[in-house]
Amino acid sequence: MFESAELGHRVDKAAYEAEVPELRTQLLDAQFDLLESAGFAVVILVNGVDAAGKGETVKLLNEWLDPRHVMTRAFDAPSSEEQERPPMWRFWRALPPKGKIGVLFGNWYEGPINARVEKDIKQSELDQRLAEINRFEQMLTREGVVLLKFWFHLSCKQQKARLEKLESDPLTRWRVTRADWRNYKQYDRRHDVAEHVVRHTSTAEAPWLIVDGSDERYRGLLVGQTLLDALRKRLDVAHKWQARVSTAPLPPQLDERNLLRQLVLDQPLDKKDYNKELERWQGRLALLTRSKAFCERSLVLVFEGMDAAGKGGSIRRVTAALDTRQYQVVPIAAPTEEERAQPYLWRFWRHVPRQGKAVIFDRSWYGRVLVERVEGFCSEADWMRAYEEINDFEDALIRAGAVVVKFWLAISDEEQLARFKAREVEPHKRHKITDEDWRNREKWPQYERAVCDMIDRTSTEAAPWTLIEADNKRFARIKVLRTICEQLESAFDE
Amino acid sequence: MFESAELGHRVDKAAYEAEVPELRTQLLDAQFDLLESAGFAVVILVNGVDAAGKGETVKLLNEWLDPRHVMTRAFDAPSSEEQERPPMWRFWRALPPKGKIGVLFGNWYEGPINARVEKDIKQSELDQRLAEINRFEQMLTREGVVLLKFWFHLSCKQQKARLEKLESDPLTRWRVTRADWRNYKQYDRRHDVAEHVVRHTSTAEAPWLIVDGSDERYRGLLVGQTLLDALRKRLDVAHKWQARVSTAPLPPQLDERNLLRQLVLDQPLDKKDYNKELERWQGRLALLTRSKAFCERSLVLVFEGMDAAGKGGSIRRVTAALDTRQYQVVPIAAPTEEERAQPYLWRFWRHVPRQGKAVIFDRSWYGRVLVERVEGFCSEADWMRAYEEINDFEDALIRAGAVVVKFWLAISDEEQLARFKAREVEPHKRHKITDEDWRNREKWPQYERAVCDMIDRTSTEAAPWTLIEADNKRFARIKVLRTICEQLESAFDE
Repeated sequence: MFESAELGHRVDKAAYEAEVPELRTQLLDAQFDLLESAGFAVVILVNGVDAAGKGETVKLLNEWLDPRHVMTRAFDAPSSEEQERPPMWRFWRALPPKGKIGVLFGNWYEGPINARVEKDIKQSELDQRLAEINRFEQMLTREGVVLLKFWFHLSCKQQKARLEKLESDPLTRWRVTRADWRNYKQYDRRHDVAEHVVRHTSTAEAPWLIVDGSDERYRGLLVGQTLLDALRKRLDVAHKWQARVSTAPLPPQLDERNLLRQLVLDQPLDKKDYNKELERWQGRLALLTRSKAFCERSLVLVFEGMDAAGKGGSIRRVTAALDTRQYQVVPIAAPTEEERAQPYLWRFWRHVPRQGKAVIFDRSWYGRVLVERVEGFCSEADWMRAYEEINDFEDALIRAGAVVVKFWLAISDEEQLARFKAREVEPHKRHKITDEDWRNREKWPQYERAVCDMIDRTSTEAAPWTLIEADNKRFARIKVLRTICEQLESAFDE
Repeated sequence: MFESAELGHRVDKAAYEAEVPELRTQLLDAQFDLLESAGFAVVILVNGVDAAGKGETVKLLNEWLDPRHVMTRAFDAPSSEEQERPPMWRFWRALPPKGKIGVLFGNWYEGPINARVEKDIKQSELDQRLAEINRFEQMLTREGVVLLKFWFHLSCKQQKARLEKLESDPLTRWRVTRADWRNYKQYDRRHDVAEHVVRHTSTAEAPWLIVDGSDERYRGLLVGQTLLDALRKRLDVAHKWQARVSTAPLPPQLDERNLLRQLVLDQPLDKKDYNKELERWQGRLALLTRSKAFCERSLVLVFEGMDAAGKGGSIRRVTAALDTRQYQVVPIAAPTEEERAQPYLWRFWRHVPRQGKAVIFDRSWYGRVLVERVEGFCSEADWMRAYEEINDFEDALIRAGAVVVKFWLAISDEEQLARFKAREVEPHKRHKITDEDWRNREKWPQYERAVCDMIDRTSTEAAPWTLIEADNKRFARIKVLRTICEQLESAFDE
């Protein structure tokens, strides 16, 4: 796959100098059109062999473009912040918002490639990681990101010559490290792994572009011109991902049974028993979250439910048991401007807890398949793909040691009505009831359907949904606390 | 993920009898609209636990639909025909053409699931297989296939009850086998593997639909109604996969260098040496293809090249060395009607050789990224995705033991002109030159570009392209023969 990149492509000085001014002007124009439209983000991946001019080419791009709107990021050893979260967290942090260009060195490909070269992982494990990368990149392109992947290549001989040349010049000697020579000695093995990776991650939407790294002018022009073409194509063709109607519909509802209707929503629990139980489970939770085992885990709680289902009250009974330095409650309402400029899950990734911490989501990423589906805020294609994306997200959390506990607080139609009315007359609760709440009530059946689909498609062995019978608030709160304790205990026992 | 399917859904007799006549009428209407439009094929996958009514439901579908246009296929142990080819070959054989409905029992999911349940493969190997399945299914949906995946579910208790009930009735006793009880004993393990598989292969385009298998009427109506919805949605919305402009363009050509231009096309080889070499390499090839090692391998040769590059002559020099019972030459021209009704690669899959056999393609699947790209016979999105699909196809061949040797016969512009002119005057070659050949000549630069991209994106370690300098026919033929011998030898040495 590297054939063309070993032909010794080059551009002579005169041709280069004739081309560059026009290219720069056009690139700047395109960059400002991008900024103004703010319609999509551009992610440029820079990978390849050492000494193939990756850094120099990116430097050039930054000279040609307006660097204020280019976010260049390199990823060395992960920080302690990063180590305590899923491996992809650091890359989510670095994604450029719509309107900007992000250049990512040593991105999500670096880890799997090195691990395989060093034989730390088997071929099948590499393929597993590549499949994850493909899913992640598919998500990016479906979110509208223009993804350009450049692989800088040198033949073995060229690499050696280039390393020697850099070493012989006092000005550049520092750039050649022992690691470079070590990688050079593994050239063949690295080449084979790279070929496998390039082949298995070149997709129609995000193919690898192999760059002959042997000539400075050639590789600079190539990357610049490719970026320009990609920007223009997208800006001018008013290109949009076609929101496609899913042809495989969800099954019809044939009978009255569903996961919610089979619940007995009003479960008995009197005040005295409640107080006893509350003390018991809060005490247990306090111990669990202060235990040694928890230092290497984290806790992600998701609370979903119809309006007035008692999410806030349950959350307060949980936080009462936690150390205030240990948790964060994240209420999810309309996204901020910054969040709207990013892929859908970005606003949740930013709150992923590090080890020893808890994050409690009052509503969550499930909004995509609940309110956004029912209200038509996103297309069917978007919420249909959200199920896989959400499962991938939670998988990543769990593999990084998080315990993910998800609650659906279920109340009856009548109970909601009663609570709405009570809110309207109680002065300190009046702000909690809006016209929107009344409107949502009318869509009860659609919400019910969406909830059942959500549970069916995202309740997994590792991150199951727990349905909470919530007409009796006391019962609901105890069941929430108990479930968290039990899931923490079972995670610690693993 | 099976929560909703354990609720004991059911439809009572009266409701069922009221629903069915209308459903049948509508299904038949939709089926005939599908047949008439012949716009797409429908593939229904039937999987799930034993005794959950898979067979009965399909039987019902065949009663409701016109069975002449439903292709129902079950896959037991592979035949010897099938064992000697890539595992996916048997499923390609069974794909329904456009206008028809294919029902596939025990399809491509069966092998990986059973292998994992029996612990014959590791988790990472399962994930590898699932990633392949995802790519395959993505190809199907991009080719326009409506893919419906039904998973028939029973809880452990339900399954036991059902097996016991079937066993107690003399009329159905034969249906319960020892394997059923064995699978039942593995219920939990099967359940966990199934959950993992369902979760990792539920995509927006082809989600799994979980069917509660406990009630005959319910599951029948569910499958029938889902099929009807899917057919109607696709037929009525005039749904088409949006041919999307790739935003990541191929890199621009900045200099004159490319893989073809660097070749010295006229290589010396005089007649005397040619005859000696020809004897030598044909003899060697004859021995190699009659060797014991070849009995467990197969040979796939691909010949591509501009018009009049000498493909036919080279092929004849190869076949001269082979046993006539051993090989097939497949000339690729316009697809037949049957072939046009299938996914693009189907016409090549049908010719995949079994062990000990050779198939020689005179032009091939690469037409997609050559003539179809240059002439605009398919969209950019289609030929861009073809690179991955072709690589996957060749991977499958190689993993099944095939040796894949691909030749690009390169001739110069002038040599082609000379050969065209010679053909026009020689009576027995006059049929070989058409107006189209002259027209193609005008697009030489576009073809050259397409050839270079093809080589860069599909020349892999396992299936590399060999460029043949072909201005001198004698040299070309010898290099072809030598390459085949060398690649066979290196494969036998593995």
